[in-house]
Amino acid sequence: MINGHTELIAHIGYPTHTFKSPMIYNPYFEHAGVNAVVVPMGCRPADYPVFLKSVFTLTNIRGALITMPHKVVTVGLLDEVTPNVTVAGACNAVRRLEDGRLLGDMFDGAGFVRGVMRKGLALDGARVLVVGSGGVGCAIAASLAGAGIGAITLFDVNTASAEALGQRLQAAYPAIEVTTGHNDPAGFDLVVNATPLGMKDGDPLPLDVSRLDARTFVGEVVMKTEMTAFLAAAQARGCRVQVGTDMLFEQIPAYLEFFGLPTASADLLRSLARLSY
Amino acid sequence: MINGHTELIAHIGYPTHTFKSPMIYNPYFEHAGVNAVVVPMGCRPADYPVFLKSVFTLTNIRGALITMPHKVVTVGLLDEVTPNVTVAGACNAVRRLEDGRLLGDMFDGAGFVRGVMRKGLALDGARVLVVGSGGVGCAIAASLAGAGIGAITLFDVNTASAEALGQRLQAAYPAIEVTTGHNDPAGFDLVVNATPLGMKDGDPLPLDVSRLDARTFVGEVVMKTEMTAFLAAAQARGCRVQVGTDMLFEQIPAYLEFFGLPTASADLLRSLARLSY
Repeated sequence: MINGHTELIAHIGYPTHTFKSPMIYNPYFEHAGVNAVVVPMGCRPADYPVFLKSVFTLTNIRGALITMPHKVVTVGLLDEVTPNVTVAGACNAVRRLEDGRLLGDMFDGAGFVRGVMRKGLALDGARVLVVGSGGVGCAIAASLAGAGIGAITLFDVNTASAEALGQRLQAAYPAIEVTTGHNDPAGFDLVVNATPLGMKDGDPLPLDVSRLDARTFVGEVVMKTEMTAFLAAAQARGCRVQVGTDMLFEQIPAYLEFFGLPTASADLLRSLARLSY
Repeated sequence: MINGHTELIAHIGYPTHTFKSPMIYNPYFEHAGVNAVVVPMGCRPADYPVFLKSVFTLTNIRGALITMPHKVVTVGLLDEVTPNVTVAGACNAVRRLEDGRLLGDMFDGAGFVRGVMRKGLALDGARVLVVGSGGVGCAIAASLAGAGIGAITLFDVNTASAEALGQRLQAAYPAIEVTTGHNDPAGFDLVVNATPLGMKDGDPLPLDVSRLDARTFVGEVVMKTEMTAFLAAAQARGCRVQVGTDMLFEQIPAYLEFFGLPTASADLLRSLARLSY
């Protein structure tokens, strides 16, 4: 029940129609008696820099969830960012520090990493392939690097973006073996589709699944359906998989901590959420 | 249920703790299946001009409810205002026109006037006394003038504000007999307390109730309790009365029309509201 004491989490992006966070956070806030609300705010790129600063002048703003198309530009609008933001080159969460400065962090990758670790995958020294070096691919690569992997291969049809990510990642984590330029999944401990392939019916698979080893763990970012064609093909080869929405729900506890709100398990959050696919 | 299609009504003021509109509009929107939400936004005066412009760049903003301390400054921030705003010298509702310009209107007075008319008071040619020439007093005077009264007496302990209101009102309505400078309620058809007296325990009454005629209709803007000491004293003298929250609920249908949303009766709105006193 929104009242004069309610704190706001601004969910800023454009367009807003596909936003899922209000239906995840708000039922949880109601359940947990947290007087806060996630509010969708559709903001076009030209209006965003002014709006972001301005919305943080509100006395009852608790933080902001940043989504497409603003994740990259946000990095340059803040006073302080975490190393995760630097490597990912993108930011999806902002809060105001006590002195009024704005701090940004990035949790897309944290959600993915928390998910695969909870499923029992050991990341220490692991060899991983991340296909897709857009916003979410960069975020996942950054979080995997922070989780202690030994080697990472980065691939994108836009070669330059994979190489740029590789350079940022290598600079921050000199001990990790970084490779770019191919998407052959053979021999990896973890393979991630971080491309949008699977969003549309008839999309090709992001890589040659016939080359997947059964021992390889396969993750997905597309959440249009739980079991995408890519995950179904990986499962058919015997691979363990993580669906796109796991990344979504696993990152919520990290966000809640960042915003200084009472936290909850990904499982509770999922059970309370009112999503429709 | 807030989702990616939800439209926002920004409820802007500072502080927000006493806001009542979210608990009036939101239960109605839920009841009526209107996918909109009133969101409290605490905004300090120094931040307000930028924030007001910026919040109206959002693609899903339906309008704004403006409250203290921003009602007066808003008048100068808009592209277009109604005559009601000009006379009242204040604005409590803003919406974006199709061409992007911002239009302001003022409904505090409309709520008061709708209320007393629904209670059977004939305003055509009526003689009225409005005590208090702050924001709400100006708004009520402006709406009463628009409703066809014959004479109005304006009183405020700040003489200059009563006189300034009188001049604006006379300029817009030359046929109305305008007087300022006393608050003797004898001989009026309608007497209104538009001062804050009654908000605090032990406040003096806003005028000498022993001079009230039984035939006089008495209205109140204070809504800290339904039956204020002033209204109780008026009732004891046989006067018909209108409580402060009537003004609140009667103005909501006017707001809903202004925002282009499905409207409802004040009675339905009141029955759905989740206010506590």
